[in-house]
Amino acid sequence: MSDISPLLDARYGSSSAPSPSGAVNPTLKTLLEHKSVRQFLPKPLTPGTIELLVAAGQSAATSSNLQTWSVVALQDTERKSHVATLCGDQGFIRDASLFFVFCADLSRLTKVSQQEGTPAVGLEYTEMFLMASLDATLAAQNVSVAAESLGLGICYVGAARNKPQELASYLGLPDRVVALFGMAIGWPNPEKPASVKPRLSQKEIVHHEKWDDGEQREHIEAYNKTLAAFDADQQRAGAPTWTKRSANRVATEKSLTGRHVYRQVLSDRGFTLL
Amino acid sequence: MSDISPLLDARYGSSSAPSPSGAVNPTLKTLLEHKSVRQFLPKPLTPGTIELLVAAGQSAATSSNLQTWSVVALQDTERKSHVATLCGDQGFIRDASLFFVFCADLSRLTKVSQQEGTPAVGLEYTEMFLMASLDATLAAQNVSVAAESLGLGICYVGAARNKPQELASYLGLPDRVVALFGMAIGWPNPEKPASVKPRLSQKEIVHHEKWDDGEQREHIEAYNKTLAAFDADQQRAGAPTWTKRSANRVATEKSLTGRHVYRQVLSDRGFTLL
Repeated sequence: MSDISPLLDARYGSSSAPSPSGAVNPTLKTLLEHKSVRQFLPKPLTPGTIELLVAAGQSAATSSNLQTWSVVALQDTERKSHVATLCGDQGFIRDASLFFVFCADLSRLTKVSQQEGTPAVGLEYTEMFLMASLDATLAAQNVSVAAESLGLGICYVGAARNKPQELASYLGLPDRVVALFGMAIGWPNPEKPASVKPRLSQKEIVHHEKWDDGEQREHIEAYNKTLAAFDADQQRAGAPTWTKRSANRVATEKSLTGRHVYRQVLSDRGFTLL
Repeated sequence: MSDISPLLDARYGSSSAPSPSGAVNPTLKTLLEHKSVRQFLPKPLTPGTIELLVAAGQSAATSSNLQTWSVVALQDTERKSHVATLCGDQGFIRDASLFFVFCADLSRLTKVSQQEGTPAVGLEYTEMFLMASLDATLAAQNVSVAAESLGLGICYVGAARNKPQELASYLGLPDRVVALFGMAIGWPNPEKPASVKPRLSQKEIVHHEKWDDGEQREHIEAYNKTLAAFDADQQRAGAPTWTKRSANRVATEKSLTGRHVYRQVLSDRGFTLL
């Protein structure tokens, strides 16, 4: 059992960490120590790893047991490289031993409905695209936790939404299937370790009984300071504040790095979104 | 260390379980043993539990570190009961010690952008609502895993989308915040244990290198049999097949139990979804 205090200090900065103290179990330790890993060793996965990861993913809850998701597993060097290009041309995807592309999948239920001879009108609603997205994400996070429990490192890749139509075409996705995000998985390079990134104070995330954002400004100010200290520690002193970075990230259509077309792509791919 | 074979057999049915054998670490065991718990003991949580769970949730990845989610924690008996009524009137929500309502939150970034004096046009796109939904879900799944590692049981509640406008109003959610789902958390009643529910074969969920659903029909047929055996074991012999149940679940607008209005609710709550 590990002591929780240093884990919470790393996650929130020591001045904003919540109070629990004492020992944590190995699972909590795995969860609290998460960091995005983008430096991988050129070392293959242990045989059976994909099966273990997928079993963990499928063990997550799924709404009404509908299982409205699928995943494409890329290990082939050339295909992984092509997909990396479509996903913001990020080199670490090429370096990872495995790249998972998690998909919202309403194709399966479309076929099931055809076989049962029922209308499947429900699939045309925003609700069902959302359900599929949530199901895929619950599964993905279990995959992430499972991978980290095995000593692997992972990095989510939202840039799988940068060129969603090209990616769908390259992967051969059928109608009513769309890539939501990717996940690069591999052995972390111990010589270039990643760091746990501090988050907003719990006071800013949790509302007890009723919404209360009366002290939001103070929480965010404090976080700007926590993150500035973290950046300085990471040799990035003088980086823009969290508020400045975040505001820029959502300022314009262009800030979305191509993802402003995602609504149209969904429509083109058969998600009506009534 | 536990042996993985019985865990995989329970998850897939012994005829469809994937091949890995050997020992699993405690985290993988926690993940593979997940079951939805709807029978809770009237026993309070250990002090500090909410803080631990939220720390686990916030430790999940979040796109561009934007942290576009929030959670409302309900413990008050009356408020929990009222929310249970809004969430499909499910009694187990009342029995749970804690009910979390996970929210997509673009309100925080709206305010941050105002403070920075930047336009925040990006927030009007489907991409940003989706990102917020994914962020909230990654966090929620970490909360689920953390809770189960502490011996607690959980059940996701999609019915938080049945009356989303009423729920938002009762919780006092501001513009650009919407409830995605709930999570009931408490001590499982050992006298009414839940069972691990079998899932579709991995062959139906994972596509290697490229999409291939050529044997989908066979996979689904096999799953209908696996689930029928599970149902018989649960004293539910003769229950409709998975395909029948699933097709009915998405057949009509009415099958969505009120959630057909979710698109309109999003719009009313300030999610433009360009």
